[in-house]
Amino acid sequence: MGKAIPSRSEDYSEWYNELVKKADLAEHSAVRGCMVIKPYGYAIWEKMQAQLDKMFKDTGHSNAYFPLFVPKSYLSKEADHVEGFAKECAVVTHYRLKNAEDGSGVVVDPEAKLEEELIVRPTSETVIWNTYRNWIQSYRDLPLLINQWANVVRWEMRTRLFLRTAEFLWQEGHTAHATKNEAVEETVKMVNVYAEFAEKFMAMPVVIGVKTESERFPGALDTYSIEALMQDGKALQAGTSHFLGQNFAKAFDVKFANKEGKLDLVWGTSWGVSTRLMGALIMAHSDDEGLVLPPNLAPIQVVIVPIFKGDEQLNVLNETVNPIVKALQDKGISVKYDNRDTHKPGWKFAEYELKGVPLRIAIGPRDLENGTIELARRDTKTKEVVSIDGIVDIVGNRLKDIQDNIYQKAYDFRTSLTTKVDSYDEFKRVLDEKGGFILAHWDGTPETEEKIKNETKATIRCIPVDSQEEEGKCVYSGKPSNMRVIFARAY
Amino acid sequence: MGKAIPSRSEDYSEWYNELVKKADLAEHSAVRGCMVIKPYGYAIWEKMQAQLDKMFKDTGHSNAYFPLFVPKSYLSKEADHVEGFAKECAVVTHYRLKNAEDGSGVVVDPEAKLEEELIVRPTSETVIWNTYRNWIQSYRDLPLLINQWANVVRWEMRTRLFLRTAEFLWQEGHTAHATKNEAVEETVKMVNVYAEFAEKFMAMPVVIGVKTESERFPGALDTYSIEALMQDGKALQAGTSHFLGQNFAKAFDVKFANKEGKLDLVWGTSWGVSTRLMGALIMAHSDDEGLVLPPNLAPIQVVIVPIFKGDEQLNVLNETVNPIVKALQDKGISVKYDNRDTHKPGWKFAEYELKGVPLRIAIGPRDLENGTIELARRDTKTKEVVSIDGIVDIVGNRLKDIQDNIYQKAYDFRTSLTTKVDSYDEFKRVLDEKGGFILAHWDGTPETEEKIKNETKATIRCIPVDSQEEEGKCVYSGKPSNMRVIFARAY
Repeated sequence: MGKAIPSRSEDYSEWYNELVKKADLAEHSAVRGCMVIKPYGYAIWEKMQAQLDKMFKDTGHSNAYFPLFVPKSYLSKEADHVEGFAKECAVVTHYRLKNAEDGSGVVVDPEAKLEEELIVRPTSETVIWNTYRNWIQSYRDLPLLINQWANVVRWEMRTRLFLRTAEFLWQEGHTAHATKNEAVEETVKMVNVYAEFAEKFMAMPVVIGVKTESERFPGALDTYSIEALMQDGKALQAGTSHFLGQNFAKAFDVKFANKEGKLDLVWGTSWGVSTRLMGALIMAHSDDEGLVLPPNLAPIQVVIVPIFKGDEQLNVLNETVNPIVKALQDKGISVKYDNRDTHKPGWKFAEYELKGVPLRIAIGPRDLENGTIELARRDTKTKEVVSIDGIVDIVGNRLKDIQDNIYQKAYDFRTSLTTKVDSYDEFKRVLDEKGGFILAHWDGTPETEEKIKNETKATIRCIPVDSQEEEGKCVYSGKPSNMRVIFARAY
Repeated sequence: MGKAIPSRSEDYSEWYNELVKKADLAEHSAVRGCMVIKPYGYAIWEKMQAQLDKMFKDTGHSNAYFPLFVPKSYLSKEADHVEGFAKECAVVTHYRLKNAEDGSGVVVDPEAKLEEELIVRPTSETVIWNTYRNWIQSYRDLPLLINQWANVVRWEMRTRLFLRTAEFLWQEGHTAHATKNEAVEETVKMVNVYAEFAEKFMAMPVVIGVKTESERFPGALDTYSIEALMQDGKALQAGTSHFLGQNFAKAFDVKFANKEGKLDLVWGTSWGVSTRLMGALIMAHSDDEGLVLPPNLAPIQVVIVPIFKGDEQLNVLNETVNPIVKALQDKGISVKYDNRDTHKPGWKFAEYELKGVPLRIAIGPRDLENGTIELARRDTKTKEVVSIDGIVDIVGNRLKDIQDNIYQKAYDFRTSLTTKVDSYDEFKRVLDEKGGFILAHWDGTPETEEKIKNETKATIRCIPVDSQEEEGKCVYSGKPSNMRVIFARAY
């Protein structure tokens, strides 16, 4: 186990870094900026994937797979898109290595230079819309509702495990529609799917909102996002859904014959979440002892630790525990019985605490006599002694309680860290002293947004979709405003 | 639908190419050698993935994810490996683009040259063993049983959809063990998992065998493979499992303290199957009308086509069919009710035949009167009229029958195309006139193997693990041999 992780109050940033490593979630690889997702971390990601994939399919989407490489010229076809994505990226220039003449290893073969460089996809709009041109002829081919699970590369200079890495895993939905309305509906539908996933599975409350023009996806007419609040009072954008208008259809000449037989440009959306969600999950709930995982995403929901001396006691315990394991599994509960004799119970308790296992069952010879076991909750650190009879139902109920409690705790935390401010002084004071979401009036101009950002490092996270109209004055310029937006410092 | 695909006898190669495209499985992308896997093709791949993933987990493996990029120097660390993989590959040399000065688009920024080039992984042994060095200290860390699902790139010059593409999707298992025996056992276990998957799910009989030295994975001490026979009499290697010995442990200095506290090199294996399996699946069973999919991997197992004129008839049919759909789904059967009025029944019949849907149900007003429906099997093209009562059980049974029949048909075909030959003349004659697997004696030398390959294009597919010892003479050299090996022309 090694030494403990730093506390959150001591050094939040180091707490996160160490927790990710100590809990065996991920580590830096030898390749700059790329991470290795370790089995325990990947198991959580697989649970996220499975649930999201189900939600995408339930909303009519199919998966497909498009190439890793984007021809350089494709990036230039949509003007905003190239500005946003053609900068820091991995460029493939050659397709062969050869043995070095001095025998020192292999070198790039200068003869094998590509005519046109290939970019490792930072996102796939260009490749996919280039393909859609051949798939779409008529309104009968629409809507086209496709998702892909893939790796992408953005050459980030400062990287942090899960939060910002050069290579990351994600899903990207790319849909094509006959009408503007349909495309807007799809954009909104998918940001709502993300919000539902975040809240019901990650137990993480989010605000759904629209991005300001300067924070929009390059090439989009509108970007919706879900914004979550981390325990250090900083915001984290956890998923985005873009209304692309006809921009990519224009760039790649994707037209369809409408019902009247007239050719029209196709309307598009794209939407994605990534392994960044892992960072959000960790930072939203975990504590100084380690991970706190919501049961709906925990690879191990229940761990059973026997307290015993010698094989004889263990054998007796096994006889009681094995049927419990079976009964829990039959209920679809993921359970691990850790009856190794190479580690002491105290070591195991700390280990599963670090790994965020929601529920721990301890059982020893004394419990057997009494027909009881001890249940310990990871989220509240409370213990209770319960009868072995009916343990399956109790475990099921406690897991539900834990899921709800983790959400409620994060929700209450966010409520306590959401502040309405009405002056720039107050804005700066709350930002520095308290952090969190700041609801403030803004005059709607990119200039003001930029100035506030430069002066305070706070950005407009979003204009919440459920904002109420309210007359007010911009905290910065004093100009009139009719709605509060959310400012925060962000990951 | 466009025009029909060529028949197999006419042009097997074109039959395959057209079938892959017409059945909406995949297509070439604008990026040389890379394919787009279309939703219907990807749905089959997802079914393969789900089953394989389950089998890997049932045998104790966990998934993880390692970086896309391999530093160039890593490839040189294992001598055979670099010879095998450092040649045709995608090389990343730069990490930034910039706007061209003449405004013509974006160009590679010469300032942003990587100190060391990165190779897009052709396989991940080097990156993974470099990581394992830090994960393995003691025998208690072993075995390490890890798999990853990933994309890989090998710069193939001549590509064919699914069979050979520059980028493909695959899984690669990488395991580390304390003893040679354990690693050998793992190698054999996993080739058996592949064989079980091929036979029970793909309905494709395979031979399990050991590769000759010249066909071994670069860096392995032994390579096991499963070899299948396609309908044109050519063999297809469908999966491989490699015993790596201590080669990669040596190259990356991966040592562990054994139970006696002594440092020892770790033993390794790796094993993989790829989207190539899609090619095998298509070529093993399909016919001149289109795909023939085994029910265990068919995205749609049953399609129901109503025969109707006008909304009134359709509404009446819907009342009967909707509960059937529900009942089939409750049994875990994947069913599609295609009651579109935009296409005629005949068009739908042809479409689902092309797509390889195992079972088709047709139902019209006359059937309703009689309480019957028509069942049509894709594999045998036979039809039967059955009572609507008990349809769920009948469908379940027919799907099992189809799965078994497809396997049996492929098995009988392979039997008919497996020939023992005892002279080189016979060898060449059988190869040219009949094709298939040729069981022949071989003197065990790479020289003979090479000569036969150059003269006939037949390679030794494998030395079957269940071969019987048998004294004989090499068909080529006449030298003594104690076992027959399998020769074939291969994909």
